[in-house]
Amino acid sequence: MSMEQVRELVSERKDAYLEQLFTLLKQKSISAQNIGMEETGELVKQMMQEVGMDARFIETDGYPVVYGEKIKDENDFTLLIYGHYDVQPPDPIDEWVSPPFEPTIRDGKIFCRGAGDNKGQLMAQLLAIKSYQDVFGELPINIKLVFEGEEENGSPNLAKFVETHKDLLKADLVYTSDGPMHDSGAPFVLLGVRGMLYVELQAKGADWDNHSGNKGNIVPNPAWQLVDLLRTMKDENGNVLIDGFYDNIRKPTEEELEIIHTLPYDKETLGKQIGYEDLDMTKEEYYRKLTMEPTFNIAGFHSGYGGEGSKTIIPSTAMLKMDMRLVVDQDPEDIFEKFKAHVKKHAPNIEVKHLGAMQPSRTPADTEVVGVVRKSVEKAYQQQPILQPSLGGSLPDYVWTKILGIPSVVVPYANFDEANHSPNENMGVDNFLNGIICTCQVIQDLGSEK
Amino acid sequence: MSMEQVRELVSERKDAYLEQLFTLLKQKSISAQNIGMEETGELVKQMMQEVGMDARFIETDGYPVVYGEKIKDENDFTLLIYGHYDVQPPDPIDEWVSPPFEPTIRDGKIFCRGAGDNKGQLMAQLLAIKSYQDVFGELPINIKLVFEGEEENGSPNLAKFVETHKDLLKADLVYTSDGPMHDSGAPFVLLGVRGMLYVELQAKGADWDNHSGNKGNIVPNPAWQLVDLLRTMKDENGNVLIDGFYDNIRKPTEEELEIIHTLPYDKETLGKQIGYEDLDMTKEEYYRKLTMEPTFNIAGFHSGYGGEGSKTIIPSTAMLKMDMRLVVDQDPEDIFEKFKAHVKKHAPNIEVKHLGAMQPSRTPADTEVVGVVRKSVEKAYQQQPILQPSLGGSLPDYVWTKILGIPSVVVPYANFDEANHSPNENMGVDNFLNGIICTCQVIQDLGSEK
Repeated sequence: MSMEQVRELVSERKDAYLEQLFTLLKQKSISAQNIGMEETGELVKQMMQEVGMDARFIETDGYPVVYGEKIKDENDFTLLIYGHYDVQPPDPIDEWVSPPFEPTIRDGKIFCRGAGDNKGQLMAQLLAIKSYQDVFGELPINIKLVFEGEEENGSPNLAKFVETHKDLLKADLVYTSDGPMHDSGAPFVLLGVRGMLYVELQAKGADWDNHSGNKGNIVPNPAWQLVDLLRTMKDENGNVLIDGFYDNIRKPTEEELEIIHTLPYDKETLGKQIGYEDLDMTKEEYYRKLTMEPTFNIAGFHSGYGGEGSKTIIPSTAMLKMDMRLVVDQDPEDIFEKFKAHVKKHAPNIEVKHLGAMQPSRTPADTEVVGVVRKSVEKAYQQQPILQPSLGGSLPDYVWTKILGIPSVVVPYANFDEANHSPNENMGVDNFLNGIICTCQVIQDLGSEK
Repeated sequence: MSMEQVRELVSERKDAYLEQLFTLLKQKSISAQNIGMEETGELVKQMMQEVGMDARFIETDGYPVVYGEKIKDENDFTLLIYGHYDVQPPDPIDEWVSPPFEPTIRDGKIFCRGAGDNKGQLMAQLLAIKSYQDVFGELPINIKLVFEGEEENGSPNLAKFVETHKDLLKADLVYTSDGPMHDSGAPFVLLGVRGMLYVELQAKGADWDNHSGNKGNIVPNPAWQLVDLLRTMKDENGNVLIDGFYDNIRKPTEEELEIIHTLPYDKETLGKQIGYEDLDMTKEEYYRKLTMEPTFNIAGFHSGYGGEGSKTIIPSTAMLKMDMRLVVDQDPEDIFEKFKAHVKKHAPNIEVKHLGAMQPSRTPADTEVVGVVRKSVEKAYQQQPILQPSLGGSLPDYVWTKILGIPSVVVPYANFDEANHSPNENMGVDNFLNGIICTCQVIQDLGSEK
């Protein structure tokens, strides 16, 4: 018995497996609008049971988690697979070529809301569990499934859920398939994300806008107050001057720095993708800045007159929105306290609001189990995966690495042009079937490691 | 024969003089909408002739100037009186208690569009010329009248007009009655204005907004570019760091500094008027900053997201509007060149646009003729006038002091609550009659000086 038999089985069952995916896709589950959530949860639970898992709902303050497990031996390796059964609203509906909740195959792709994000990838996990057992008789490891219903709402209850069920969720690795593969078609293995702190600052001058002539030099200008504050926060080379901002940043490992050399980088294509053709960074600089360094971004600055021509006022208010992408082990709440202390010292009248935060997360590249997954993915796709130490963006990966304290990897199965969150969302039929095979390979290899 | 007789005459003729003013007020002259301009120009010319002036139109690229003169002897003192015959549009009409072009007296005030700004004050000049001659037989000085029709449009052709007719306009003093008296009821003598330079800056990053996570640290942020530029332009104490910005500032004279001590200042009332009750300046500081020092004001700063909550973007553009109020002898075009050179040096990719400029102007307080006018005003109102070296705002006063090169004073006749540019514009009947007397006194005293 070998993985070759899994490939054959998946190939034979292609239509049946697509049929099962279509059943799930047809069932709407728009968390933002509370459409079909209960029915979809029920369906997912039933599908878990059909592949041999003990399945049940676990309540949260929002939509329940559908939890499944199959425990062979508590001493065996335990894999926790995370996914989500909710989808984005389908708007704008007019732009869909086929109706958003009627799965349709065109050009080798399944078009439907949720095809890639995340039902196609979630279904690949379930069908991998089924296929593996049908070929090999039984699973070589323990498997736990956490499929939540609020990812598209920002997973507001996930951290609390994990905190509350730490014992139940004990595992050796968390495995997530979500998002797109690399645009070259190569598979991705992602080891982390940057965290985030989002703040809003309000500066106030007079109670109303004043005439810049009749009152110029008399009334304080809140836009200048923000500029004067910002100049104390960052030097001209981009270094953040807030006391302790860099204190807890984990030094990249040798291996992480080496990985960067292996990553694909095409300055010209990238420049076009981001609309900035003057991009002038080496590959090493690019990935270090994107994945290993925090940002200190102005997301919005608004004060005074913004229309055509001139209006001679001293604005009465000025507003600044900033987001800071944080890297391990910066803690957003700690950074917020340091940020507030800085503002209090330099501009005590400026008000600071906390608009959101997420912890950064990173699984070290030299973790043994990461090496196993990396090789499994290579075998499944017969192509070396792109290993990236971190996304530039933010996802709640910390609930696994910080709250559970275990390694976590993200291995996306969808095509790079899946159009998640957009009209005509899709997933390649091959991407779906390869995903099943990839998960089987991971299960097998983790089983051999124990 | 004395000024007492002038007072008696004006008092006797009150009804007739009001009747003449009403005739002018009823004639609409909205320059912004080209309503009644020709008819009003004709009426003003005729009224000039009725008081014994040689009157004619002088064409400009816009509405003509109505010019009048009565030259006794070219070697005598020549007074040039400036005023304007156009008015603001009356909108919003619903808020007028009586119709905007039907002069109506209520509570001792004439309500009508143009009552204070500037027909009531312009008419006071004409009736002063008439009254003076009727009492004293002839004028003791030469008088030239320049009544333009485009003041409410920003006097776009005034500088060129003055430049073109330098010889014709030769005079020893320019006298303007416009705007309101001090809110204490005391008369004002204003000796100048601040100039202005208005610029707009555009910074550009990528061609579109990028995701602050996926592209954070990669795409340049134009809001930060503006902040980094601004920090090179002004230190934290408010000093402008642009090379040569302060070069040509005329040092306040002893007399100007002394005048400041005599000015009224009530910190609490002022704080309420400007909506900034924390105002904490001494009188000397306040007037020095308002009248003797330039400003470096941010009138608008706009970049990125400004709505509720958070949006995680790197903005693609950032826009800054600044106005600088300039003091004698800063030249706005010279300052613009210096500003551009500074931007070119520190942020060559940021675009600078010139949105408007006006020269500053100041007549030295120790000019002999200023002393004469000051005393005339004191005699006319039997109250010491408030002498202010400069307005904080900007008016085209430089056409007299720079182009003609002669002293210029502004002596407002309207009540402080004249509501110019607003519904229910008005001028006190007493303000109108006292204005006539004041101009007579000025004519008489300038005549005795020759």
